[in-house]
Amino acid sequence: MLHAQIITVRKNKEKWLIQAMKEYEKRLISEVTIEWKFVKSEEHLIPATASLRYFCLDSQGRMMDSVQLSHLLFNFAEKFGPKITFIIGGKEGIPEAIKNNAYKILSFSPLTFTHQMVRLILLEQIYRAVQIEKGTHYHQ
Amino acid sequence: MLHAQIITVRKNKEKWLIQAMKEYEKRLISEVTIEWKFVKSEEHLIPATASLRYFCLDSQGRMMDSVQLSHLLFNFAEKFGPKITFIIGGKEGIPEAIKNNAYKILSFSPLTFTHQMVRLILLEQIYRAVQIEKGTHYHQ
Repeated sequence: MLHAQIITVRKNKEKWLIQAMKEYEKRLISEVTIEWKFVKSEEHLIPATASLRYFCLDSQGRMMDSVQLSHLLFNFAEKFGPKITFIIGGKEGIPEAIKNNAYKILSFSPLTFTHQMVRLILLEQIYRAVQIEKGTHYHQ
Repeated sequence: MLHAQIITVRKNKEKWLIQAMKEYEKRLISEVTIEWKFVKSEEHLIPATASLRYFCLDSQGRMMDSVQLSHLLFNFAEKFGPKITFIIGGKEGIPEAIKNNAYKILSFSPLTFTHQMVRLILLEQIYRAVQIEKGTHYHQ
């Protein structure tokens, strides 16, 4: 059982996104618990991440495919325990001080996505990572 | 005014996705008309794309950032007219015969996304491409 903590800036506003999140959290429920932590602005990410080991999602990060991402997350959990923290910035991106202290910086695409959509893509990738680890038909 | 035709396999099933699509189509309404064409299976893409000049969305394609994508789409429209066709495969991907005849093959990410989510990302990137072309604050 993994525990994914996602720290990000401001809550979801779009109804469809809230629905989509619920849908993926439901699918994940027996494998991964999801904990959202919403801060008011980018600068509030700094105290929120203090003393944590975390992944940043940022366009300057390293890209990988879904199988590599699955291995990365499960190797992390094996090494450091089941809690995995992800940081998603807001409109202003992630402060440099936070990126400098990241365990790893990951990028989903050279394209710019809305920060809200990145939340949904992350949930789907966590779900996919679990399916890859289990060897189900989802990722085939 | 652009006209984006999106040819893909099977309709959207998820409620949140249908809502999200409507939301982006509403935002695009004064700039881009969206025409969806749903075929029953991957092999039905072959007659549906005959005699068209089109972009394929496929993980083996070329990646680019949102500014490059915007330039690519607006240059295409200037050269060939306002109708831009995109092909998104289903679970089985896009048949080789269709990829071989594509004007260009584009990839959104080395990660695997659901084909349904690719539809949403495409709409957001079309919206972003228009905002980049217009020089609004959306992509900054």
